[in-house]
Amino acid sequence: MKVRLIIMLKQGVLDPQGKAINHALHNLSFTEVQDVRVGRVIDLEVEENSAEKAKARASEMAKELLANGVIEDFQVEVLS
Amino acid sequence: MKVRLIIMLKQGVLDPQGKAINHALHNLSFTEVQDVRVGRVIDLEVEENSAEKAKARASEMAKELLANGVIEDFQVEVLS
Repeated sequence: MKVRLIIMLKQGVLDPQGKAINHALHNLSFTEVQDVRVGRVIDLEVEENSAEKAKARASEMAKELLANGVIEDFQVEVLS
Repeated sequence: MKVRLIIMLKQGVLDPQGKAINHALHNLSFTEVQDVRVGRVIDLEVEENSAEKAKARASEMAKELLANGVIEDFQVEVLS
């Protein structure tokens, strides 16, 4: 089963990388862009048949290792 | 309109960061994990009412600046 973790900075946490990308896009004439936030995606291939269990385990992985709960939020999606 | 770009290394391109995470997860007893791939997510807030156009523009942004077409693939999702 394939599970996707999406880890983003929390709302309100400054995202300098996003700001830099926003600026670069404007320089390339993508002036419709108003805000950019950058995060990480981690695709996990797990040996697990239940989507619910896979999600719960991925959530544990995020809390224990992959996301920094102080400044980051994460979402878990089951891909297949 | 909010558009999400997901940028991953192409299948077959070595992902040392993913390998390191896989290893670390195994050390933490998440032994059901078989493979890990790491990528970037870029959320764009764009001034555009048509989902189709927003997607097309985000795709241009990925090609011109955000993704490295040689080693990376990207997906575009309209969030809202």
